Amino acid sequence: MDIDSNTRVDLIVSGLGNIGRRFLSILDRKRPYLCQKYGLDLNVVGVVDSRGAAIDTHGLDLARLVNIKEKGGSAADYPGGYSDTSPLQVVQRVRADVLCEATPVNMEHGEPGLSCMRHALSHGMHVVTANKGPLVLAYGELQRLARESRLRIKFCGTVAGGLPAINLGQRDLAGARIEKLEALPNLTTSFILDRMAQGMTDAQALSAAQAQGCAEADPSLDVDGWDAAFKLVILANSVLGIPAALQDVSVTGITGVTQADLDRAQAEGRMIKLVASASLQGERYQLTVAPTPLPAGHPLAQLSGQHMGIVYHTDIYGAIAASILETEPVPSAASMLRDLLSIYADLP
Amino acid sequence: MDIDSNTRVDLIVSGLGNIGRRFLSILDRKRPYLCQKYGLDLNVVGVVDSRGAAIDTHGLDLARLVNIKEKGGSAADYPGGYSDTSPLQVVQRVRADVLCEATPVNMEHGEPGLSCMRHALSHGMHVVTANKGPLVLAYGELQRLARESRLRIKFCGTVAGGLPAINLGQRDLAGARIEKLEALPNLTTSFILDRMAQGMTDAQALSAAQAQGCAEADPSLDVDGWDAAFKLVILANSVLGIPAALQDVSVTGITGVTQADLDRAQAEGRMIKLVASASLQGERYQLTVAPTPLPAGHPLAQLSGQHMGIVYHTDIYGAIAASILETEPVPSAASMLRDLLSIYADLP
Repeated sequence: MDIDSNTRVDLIVSGLGNIGRRFLSILDRKRPYLCQKYGLDLNVVGVVDSRGAAIDTHGLDLARLVNIKEKGGSAADYPGGYSDTSPLQVVQRVRADVLCEATPVNMEHGEPGLSCMRHALSHGMHVVTANKGPLVLAYGELQRLARESRLRIKFCGTVAGGLPAINLGQRDLAGARIEKLEALPNLTTSFILDRMAQGMTDAQALSAAQAQGCAEADPSLDVDGWDAAFKLVILANSVLGIPAALQDVSVTGITGVTQADLDRAQAEGRMIKLVASASLQGERYQLTVAPTPLPAGHPLAQLSGQHMGIVYHTDIYGAIAASILETEPVPSAASMLRDLLSIYADLP
Repeated sequence: MDIDSNTRVDLIVSGLGNIGRRFLSILDRKRPYLCQKYGLDLNVVGVVDSRGAAIDTHGLDLARLVNIKEKGGSAADYPGGYSDTSPLQVVQRVRADVLCEATPVNMEHGEPGLSCMRHALSHGMHVVTANKGPLVLAYGELQRLARESRLRIKFCGTVAGGLPAINLGQRDLAGARIEKLEALPNLTTSFILDRMAQGMTDAQALSAAQAQGCAEADPSLDVDGWDAAFKLVILANSVLGIPAALQDVSVTGITGVTQADLDRAQAEGRMIKLVASASLQGERYQLTVAPTPLPAGHPLAQLSGQHMGIVYHTDIYGAIAASILETEPVPSAASMLRDLLSIYADLP
């Protein structure tokens, strides 16, 4: 490996939770391979979490950072680290090529991600992100900023973890009319419905999901269908090309699904899933999130509680389905690497 | 639609069988949409089939051509058409930006496709193709020619009809180690095994496949596993990056699969499918085509006889599966449009 012949790409990684930390770990492990295969040296020059930042324009020691985070520390604990430094301050002060944004989702104001993305796209940085908030709240604005600056904003990890659902829709269905899309983008509800179908009560299934780490302490965004609706809004904007907002989605969660509903569906050979769908009615898409009994032959019906999936029904490419088995958040974190390579690597 | 603001792309379409004819029909129907959405005016300046050619540097009337072909005619029957003109002669004489190659598959010498592709890539034309032959026989040479001329050769329709199996592997799995891939790329054998599992004899199942139009009069390339092996060779070269040839694949067809095998598998909750797989053993991939009993939860197990599918098992993107329901060859034909747009359209 001749490091000098590689193109160096400087990254800021903002947010070091489940996704950001695993992303650093992937970058650390894959660095020699990415140099050799793509001639790209992905070099992290700044990281920031809720307690502070670490900055080194020559490149941070990612193994060390991951170790600090795994022990419950903060970026501020890295040698020479800065406490009380915000993500926006890091993005304002550190020169980099790409902002990799993975701070917690906030659906009221999108912060701290949204301001950082705006700054990055106005100051010569591409954005790759796994953070739904800013995209749901400001999709059009962020795309416009990127277009005006001839930069890219890539976000394939926002919709279905490591599944390239957006890429499939944007690139592989180019030229088609998408008549309908159906997605299972939310692991928590799939897991809960799966366990309920196996006989657990809804409370037991929720506890099991929380024990498994696939439900938040406050699971209401998941079980009430909002997380699926967020993802549907992103799919609608990015793949269907319509300026949809959250209020355009009819949302029903799974709290009304009873054991009797599941039993009845099973007796009919159907599986109830929380389906996010966009269906072309005349010239308009109808956007819906609702518990839906899927027939056994439906490509999403057999997916387990650890799968996410999507089906696109098109005029010229038939019906194309894709799914991912994601038992831990590594694929979601890796989706930011996929996005980076789609910008910088010379892919076929 | 302002036709003048569009980028005009001149195409030669060689081969007007099941795929080529449908491709012309798609181009004809989609032309205004492609102008409006991508600013691309895809203009067919030459077509050629086994009986002759039609050429018009201003653009052929595709509806007229499709009509001639549907009535059993030849390109030579188009007003001003040329009989006894070969594909290579058309590629040599007509200036175009892209050769769209869909002549019949020939696995001995790859002709007439291979010579046409060589000429195109040596004379400034990109190639998009649904023709496996030249890629199986001369993958490395064609890629080298394209690279040297800074041209593209795209062939996503060669492996699994309209399913973007190659794109998924080449682009969306960038950065990953693919530990294993498993594919059901051959409709005929899936259809036959499906019908046999429902109680038909192998002879009845084959007749049903032929009646359905999903098996050739001579089905041996399909039932003996060779068609799946061809596709595995293309996947190995394009996605796994190994210079595999047909002799590197261990091939077993479905002729040895008995009713007793299917019954035994079903009793164990398994489905026998003809699986093409590449499995990493140490540093080398083992390439195999063989009837394989898949457990019910396997993402390819539930696919019907009208589906094709693939699963990639990776180190960082989890296990990603994709499938297509293809009840007629339109998606296979549309895959050439997908390839064209991947070259010319400004996709995200």
